[in-house]
Amino acid sequence: MKNKNTLKVRFLGGVGEIGKNMTALEYGKDIIVIDAGLTFPNADMPGIDLLIPDVSYLVQNKEKIRGIVLTHGHEDHIGALPYVLQDINVPVYGTKLTLMLAEHKLKEQRLNNYSLNCIKAGGTIKLGCFTVEFIHVNHSIPGSCALAITTPIGLVYHSGDFKIDLTPINGQMIDIPRISAIGKKGVTLLLCESTNVEQEGYTMSEHVVGETLDRLFMDNVRRRIIVATFATNVHRLQQIIDLAVKHKRKIAFSGRSMLNVVEAATKVDEIRLPENMVVDIGKIKNIADKDLCIISTGSQGEPMSALTRMAAGDFNQVQVGSNDTIIISASPIPGNERSIYQVINNLYKKGAEVVYKSIAKIHVSGHACQEELKILHTLLKPKFFIPVHGEYRHLKKHCNLAKSLGMKDGNMLIAEIGDTIEVSQKAMKRGERVQAGARYIDGIAIDDSESVVRDRKHLAEDGFIVAVCCISEDSGEIIQDPDIIIKGGILSDEHVSDLKRLVCSTISDFDVKAVGDKSEIRNAIRKNLRNYVLKKTKKNPMILPVLTEV
Amino acid sequence: MKNKNTLKVRFLGGVGEIGKNMTALEYGKDIIVIDAGLTFPNADMPGIDLLIPDVSYLVQNKEKIRGIVLTHGHEDHIGALPYVLQDINVPVYGTKLTLMLAEHKLKEQRLNNYSLNCIKAGGTIKLGCFTVEFIHVNHSIPGSCALAITTPIGLVYHSGDFKIDLTPINGQMIDIPRISAIGKKGVTLLLCESTNVEQEGYTMSEHVVGETLDRLFMDNVRRRIIVATFATNVHRLQQIIDLAVKHKRKIAFSGRSMLNVVEAATKVDEIRLPENMVVDIGKIKNIADKDLCIISTGSQGEPMSALTRMAAGDFNQVQVGSNDTIIISASPIPGNERSIYQVINNLYKKGAEVVYKSIAKIHVSGHACQEELKILHTLLKPKFFIPVHGEYRHLKKHCNLAKSLGMKDGNMLIAEIGDTIEVSQKAMKRGERVQAGARYIDGIAIDDSESVVRDRKHLAEDGFIVAVCCISEDSGEIIQDPDIIIKGGILSDEHVSDLKRLVCSTISDFDVKAVGDKSEIRNAIRKNLRNYVLKKTKKNPMILPVLTEV
Repeated sequence: MKNKNTLKVRFLGGVGEIGKNMTALEYGKDIIVIDAGLTFPNADMPGIDLLIPDVSYLVQNKEKIRGIVLTHGHEDHIGALPYVLQDINVPVYGTKLTLMLAEHKLKEQRLNNYSLNCIKAGGTIKLGCFTVEFIHVNHSIPGSCALAITTPIGLVYHSGDFKIDLTPINGQMIDIPRISAIGKKGVTLLLCESTNVEQEGYTMSEHVVGETLDRLFMDNVRRRIIVATFATNVHRLQQIIDLAVKHKRKIAFSGRSMLNVVEAATKVDEIRLPENMVVDIGKIKNIADKDLCIISTGSQGEPMSALTRMAAGDFNQVQVGSNDTIIISASPIPGNERSIYQVINNLYKKGAEVVYKSIAKIHVSGHACQEELKILHTLLKPKFFIPVHGEYRHLKKHCNLAKSLGMKDGNMLIAEIGDTIEVSQKAMKRGERVQAGARYIDGIAIDDSESVVRDRKHLAEDGFIVAVCCISEDSGEIIQDPDIIIKGGILSDEHVSDLKRLVCSTISDFDVKAVGDKSEIRNAIRKNLRNYVLKKTKKNPMILPVLTEV
Repeated sequence: MKNKNTLKVRFLGGVGEIGKNMTALEYGKDIIVIDAGLTFPNADMPGIDLLIPDVSYLVQNKEKIRGIVLTHGHEDHIGALPYVLQDINVPVYGTKLTLMLAEHKLKEQRLNNYSLNCIKAGGTIKLGCFTVEFIHVNHSIPGSCALAITTPIGLVYHSGDFKIDLTPINGQMIDIPRISAIGKKGVTLLLCESTNVEQEGYTMSEHVVGETLDRLFMDNVRRRIIVATFATNVHRLQQIIDLAVKHKRKIAFSGRSMLNVVEAATKVDEIRLPENMVVDIGKIKNIADKDLCIISTGSQGEPMSALTRMAAGDFNQVQVGSNDTIIISASPIPGNERSIYQVINNLYKKGAEVVYKSIAKIHVSGHACQEELKILHTLLKPKFFIPVHGEYRHLKKHCNLAKSLGMKDGNMLIAEIGDTIEVSQKAMKRGERVQAGARYIDGIAIDDSESVVRDRKHLAEDGFIVAVCCISEDSGEIIQDPDIIIKGGILSDEHVSDLKRLVCSTISDFDVKAVGDKSEIRNAIRKNLRNYVLKKTKKNPMILPVLTEV
């Protein structure tokens, strides 16, 4: 039992990026889970709706789990809650906006039996042997926190997603005094996000966006203004609302998630919204262009979003035309570039003016750049360091950054998804591996294997061929010309005839009646057809022989 | 015959970007074709190898075509030649490196009967009523030219791909004096590329990359250096070669296209390569790390490229380790980000150091930014302007740029793929539409329709279900339990049983013997199964009913 007195940091979630979506801390008979987020699929995962952390390890250790602690309300931190709570129904802790958004998700999925517990920034909860303090940080959603977790091996600081904003909107600067005090007491382990570690300097303040927007409002006094942004970027929404009020424009919200977030944030006083300024999107026809500002979803070109449908001329309530100025107040998330540029092209074709990141300072990141990361490292002076939230290249660079501040090579580790890192007061090392990573959510089914996705990729590349053949149960002879069905590929009539002949000749090589397991015949058909198609077309479609005995 | 005296500019090629790959000029009984390039498919086109221009219009007007004029040797300008020349075998004109690369492609595809005609920058050819002058420009491949085409309605200037490099490698600055002279004589129409129209200022000189590389060679004196870049970026290759010589390192080339381009460029004196400095990649084992520089393909993370295979530990001749510094001297082409970052992550995991665009000035663009575009517009002072090479948003901005320099709205047009723009000395207007756009090349078949790709996308999203049922030809009764095959999706055993029952009950709704065309029954089965699956799984797989009568 030599590992008895170590803290086990388990990296359970993420796809490509390490330390994302879900991390667990385990000591003795206690486990706490940090975040329960989802990842959206990339182009390599056709037909997959979303990916959630594999919680097999937690299910096996249910009785140890003291709770789930949420750092903030973004999808990649709370989006998997409805799935995770079905497997492990434990208390959930977070700040009020985070819980408001989480609750909305749980209700959408018709979950009822859950325990959400509101903690204020600065507040503390005791979960088994762990004491978790919520530390206010700046980020692109209000109520974001870092976690200072007192454990039997010392303090563990989890940065959450953060930036240092000296002029934040509607709120306070990251709690540097408290972070400094924690650093003075001593930090055993730092887990710090790495999203912007490749960016030099500082992230710009959210205020910069307000200045650009103000100028755009002034430049477009006679035109209708439509601003698309992330619904959860509540401070951005607040700035747009304040500008609309300043420039005497009514505000209409469009898009389901926009309405949800505005409702939730207003309820918990994170948005100040003068009632008389808001009009229903269905009633904007009576308002002159110059008196209206529409705040919309769709800043990523999501196929069903309000802005995408406006651009396609497919959104009844808003017809885009030459008197519209559309401001896309966001950066394309990697992978979304083509969709968003398609939306921009369509808006231009409708005669609208479009303002977006490539041509104006219309968005700032919510994540710390190099100098901000250095501030956190320097204030906390941790003994051990594990970079999180990033691809391997980011984590590697984050280690280099820590090293430049004096961190020793032996005191840093880059974890992989599924790794356990064992930390004592004196040492840190890689421990056992546990089942972890991503589970695919596809429609309403949870697929635990990757074979379905593999099949789809195969189908997408080369299509398929079904060869159907009827055999007499009595004589073992072919009764009917085989049917050949081809989808997602092209073969000439001549090739199809060859395939039919090939099916027949393959079957006739067998003493069909004598063969008990027909899969042998099917495999032979598959092999012969594949070789033929590969030779003739250089393609490798999925081949499905069907033998029907009648 | 009112259009008799107009020049018809026909936009035949491109996917998403307008005026790419192929443009034709037609006047009376003469046509000249500018470029014959290909486009690589995006993630929306599973299984497609490449896209070439639809030359239907040219095939129908074969007798008018006087030749194909190539601006430079990049794939998006010459890559479709082997396909195009099979349909319209006309003389091809270009500079020597362009033709060398084109010839290599033609030989690869085993074409023999073609006419390649070398033109020097500054040279002129007469093609029917057109006189084409090749104007030297700077770009990321030597031998790049703009075209000054004298036509019966005046001079048409086609910019090709270009930048203004005041300190070019191995060559001369863009021929500003000649361009100025052309501008003085008067330009009727400017077709100008728009790739970097969103970028302010000037594109950096290729020399800047050399300075960064020199510093990296100095910083890594004891390590092996591997540089990955575009094979066709011959000036980049020359800089790397010169630095290797300066720092006394032998040079090994890796990757098929790298070897091809180096051979071609050396033959036409576009690369100076000291023979004794080159070693075969198969013989690098005898050379100390500090004495070697490998120049490799794979800067875009292409799956089969040398660098990708090195990163995967799958390239016999080069084992990447902790004494390697890998320099990726390129920017990710939009859409390649995930592949290239995967390669970078893998290289880091092998312990190597990796230097890439996000963290160093290791690549410059080959395309003109705003100020360079302004110089061209200002020198040429064209009467009419059509922006080319870009998505709609780029073309729109390029029009705005032209307008800021005094161009009138009525004298500019944004074309669409398939458009004909008719230009006279006095006016420019949109004319007829012709068949144009992209043809898919898939394995060795040329698909003229999009249905195959549509099928593949459907398969990729939701998979497919085949329902096979044997019916007695005599009685019309079902002889055997139906077979249900599911790929790319998941259904429970219970659902499969339901589907079987549904097939049977659907068939029994028909008087099978009386139904002449069985497609009616198949359609009913398809509809019923689709409704069931949609309801149970929210998925919409492709459904293929197969009825076999025996």
